[in-house]
Amino acid sequence: MAKSRYEYVKNFEQDLTTLPQTWIVIRVDGQAFTKFCETHHLEKPNDLRCLNTMNKAAQMTCLKFTDIVLAYGQSDEYSFVISPNSSFFNRRQQKIISTVVSYFTSCFVVNWPNDIPLQYPPTFDCRLVCYPSFEILHDYLRWRQADCHINNLYNTTFWALVKGGLTEREAHNTLKGTTSAVKNQILFERSINYNNEPEIYKKGTVIVKPYLEFLHEDIFHRNFFMTYNILV
Amino acid sequence: MAKSRYEYVKNFEQDLTTLPQTWIVIRVDGQAFTKFCETHHLEKPNDLRCLNTMNKAAQMTCLKFTDIVLAYGQSDEYSFVISPNSSFFNRRQQKIISTVVSYFTSCFVVNWPNDIPLQYPPTFDCRLVCYPSFEILHDYLRWRQADCHINNLYNTTFWALVKGGLTEREAHNTLKGTTSAVKNQILFERSINYNNEPEIYKKGTVIVKPYLEFLHEDIFHRNFFMTYNILV
Amino acid sequence: MAKSRYEYVKNFEQDLTTLPQTWIVIRVDGQAFTKFCETHHLEKPNDLRCLNTMNKAAQMTCLKFTDIVLAYGQSDEYSFVISPNSSFFNRRQQKIISTVVSYFTSCFVVNWPNDIPLQYPPTFDCRLVCYPSFEILHDYLRWRQADCHINNLYNTTFWALVKGGLTEREAHNTLKGTTSAVKNQILFERSINYNNEPEIYKKGTVIVKPYLEFLHEDIFHRNFFMTYNILV
Amino acid sequence: MAKSRYEYVKNFEQDLTTLPQTWIVIRVDGQAFTKFCETHHLEKPNDLRCLNTMNKAAQMTCLKFTDIVLAYGQSDEYSFVISPNSSFFNRRQQKIISTVVSYFTSCFVVNWPNDIPLQYPPTFDCRLVCYPSFEILHDYLRWRQADCHINNLYNTTFWALVKGGLTEREAHNTLKGTTSAVKNQILFERSINYNNEPEIYKKGTVIVKPYLEFLHEDIFHRNFFMTYNILV
Repeated sequence: MAKSRYEYVKNFEQDLTTLPQTWIVIRVDGQAFTKFCETHHLEKPNDLRCLNTMNKAAQMTCLKFTDIVLAYGQSDEYSFVISPNSSFFNRRQQKIISTVVSYFTSCFVVNWPNDIPLQYPPTFDCRLVCYPSFEILHDYLRWRQADCHINNLYNTTFWALVKGGLTEREAHNTLKGTTSAVKNQILFERSINYNNEPEIYKKGTVIVKPYLEFLHEDIFHRNFFMTYNILV
Repeated sequence: MAKSRYEYVKNFEQDLTTLPQTWIVIRVDGQAFTKFCETHHLEKPNDLRCLNTMNKAAQMTCLKFTDIVLAYGQSDEYSFVISPNSSFFNRRQQKIISTVVSYFTSCFVVNWPNDIPLQYPPTFDCRLVCYPSFEILHDYLRWRQADCHINNLYNTTFWALVKGGLTEREAHNTLKGTTSAVKNQILFERSINYNNEPEIYKKGTVIVKPYLEFLHEDIFHRNFFMTYNILV
Repeated sequence: MAKSRYEYVKNFEQDLTTLPQTWIVIRVDGQAFTKFCETHHLEKPNDLRCLNTMNKAAQMTCLKFTDIVLAYGQSDEYSFVISPNSSFFNRRQQKIISTVVSYFTSCFVVNWPNDIPLQYPPTFDCRLVCYPSFEILHDYLRWRQADCHINNLYNTTFWALVKGGLTEREAHNTLKGTTSAVKNQILFERSINYNNEPEIYKKGTVIVKPYLEFLHEDIFHRNFFMTYNILV
Repeated sequence: MAKSRYEYVKNFEQDLTTLPQTWIVIRVDGQAFTKFCETHHLEKPNDLRCLNTMNKAAQMTCLKFTDIVLAYGQSDEYSFVISPNSSFFNRRQQKIISTVVSYFTSCFVVNWPNDIPLQYPPTFDCRLVCYPSFEILHDYLRWRQADCHINNLYNTTFWALVKGGLTEREAHNTLKGTTSAVKNQILFERSINYNNEPEIYKKGTVIVKPYLEFLHEDIFHRNFFMTYNILV
């Protein structure tokens, strides 16, 4: 059984390493989660049980992989930040991506609430991106948090309209091209003050090492990082 | 909330595509499964419940991703083969790796037997390799199946010795440098005919599209592929 | 002078290797050669002195790098083919690309005809592509030779029109959207039988190891490779 | 002549782009220049005519490619630095490497002194490395300049010994493991004050945009960059 005769096939492996001294961001992202939410009858526009499961999975991921210094999550996505001088899995891309997304998925399934029977196994994809400076990493985090805000304001207004009697198509048409101010006004007319919406929906969730608690704060401002004595 | 101001950070994404017209192999591999087996008191040298969970997860993975034409699994690993002309996720490496390993992990956890409570979330890593010809792909599969045989013969003999009263250290020393013939003889003296061991342990498991049944056969011989009218 | 203190910067080097057992094609391509031809008053549509310099540079390149098995050139470009089992510079992409294009450029300048004084240093760029099978490599070569034919027929007709009194703009407009048959007819009316044009212009130039002579033949047909007992 | 039938082969091209907002260093390096120097009977330990040709080629390279902000050369190598926000050739690696090394080689040959007939075409290889911060780029430049000093001190001493009557083997053995101080002492005993050696030999050559003059200065100190109002 000449196993060694076949081992030359290992030479075809080409695992890239990420550039040293750059911030590594790993973002896991739910695949087809619109359908997942419908199938499992999750609440609109936000389902706290699902967000809590995401957060719990992210917290466990932060705990397991000590090279992660910060995580930011919103909706069905979570970004994990690895510090520039880390040699996490020797910075091998395939190893990092696959291990993080596998563990995160595993934690998500294990922590899924018992009272919502899983209809099928959920899937996440994952990408790895390098950022050469803290400023650009910071812009990345702002980008994801701006995305959270924009989507949440839209979705909150959209579902308020639908609960108020509009069809989904009518709600879409009503909101098309509207500014934030108009959306806030629509909500206000329905006795919803957007500012009073839960912070977790408006800001998403930040996990900062070594605290591992869930923060729902602006990471738009540099003093967030100074407060936590990290990164800068 | 100028989201677009931050969107330049997307320019840092660099997802490689795999070379067209090459066989793509994606291998998921249990991380620290020696410890996982111990923690969950799995049977030695093979635990059929764990293998069945691996097989079930692989079968579901084959079913979900129609570009997979064949899968081969043994121990805590599974290789999925994608045909050369596939445009699975536009052949983007990060997307392919992350999605497959995430779904596989999800299926593994969901199908884990209820009577063995999970102590912690299992993790798999994943690598993607391209093979430019069927011959080399074939050698890859032979390599994994040879690995299955070699490890299984060793482990079967090792645990027979331990069950016979040797310490693990003594068993290791007894087997060090021994040939297959010697191992077969040791087993024979303990009334074990290795040839009669279950095929699933000796050969691993092959899943061929579109049948999706579990085969425990030699893929060393070219007519295996001819029988299934595939690949060649 | 602690040189070693700085040597960590070597860790940032990331030279990719090309996939083993694939055909490597390295194509050098003249940069801004339209301007180069004008500045040096080269003949239209083909300048034999320039083509000879290209061929001589390619021949020397084939001679220096023994891993090259075939070269094909036309106009201001040359493709060099390296066999799949070669370990040329350990298949490192940057090393292969830079060395080949540097040597080719060097040979081009050294062999440039003395009677056409160089006005400035010519430049070539270079790309490396892997082809997983002989069939695809063959299509690559056919692609470049088809490109040679199409451009040469166009240029021959174009300059015949210009020499016949049309402005370049008029000649372009006359040829826009015409078939090969029409172009042949235009040439025929000006007493030019395209079939009698020199083979080097119509077919380009092939160099096959170990002969190193210049062939101006079709490489569209598989028996070309059989004749030279190579590649297949 | 269905050219389009073959154009699918373009899909196999995989030109990587370098990470945005990182310093790009392109280093050209003479191949087998020990032999090149011997064949052309160049002077030991430094041949000013050859260094001048290197410098002239680098100066022309800086002039042609406006994205280059600084170049540093010594011995048979030259490093070109491209600023982080450059979109030089869309940051495509193959394009950048091949074009720069081709033009540099072309300039080297064109500027080679007429009174030293070229025996064969010289070749340079080239590598591209990204540095995520100015500090690391700075360490890269210090590394190359430290290399210049160490090699020049060694070579100056080595050839002083050889000119003093030792064989090359004896000179090597004499210098093995010696400190800088010892080498300075050996030179001093032969009436050579290393400090008085030409700066171009001891420091190499820096070219800073937009001045394009040749500087032979320390780039070890940050105020070098401040003086030239560049980079930082």
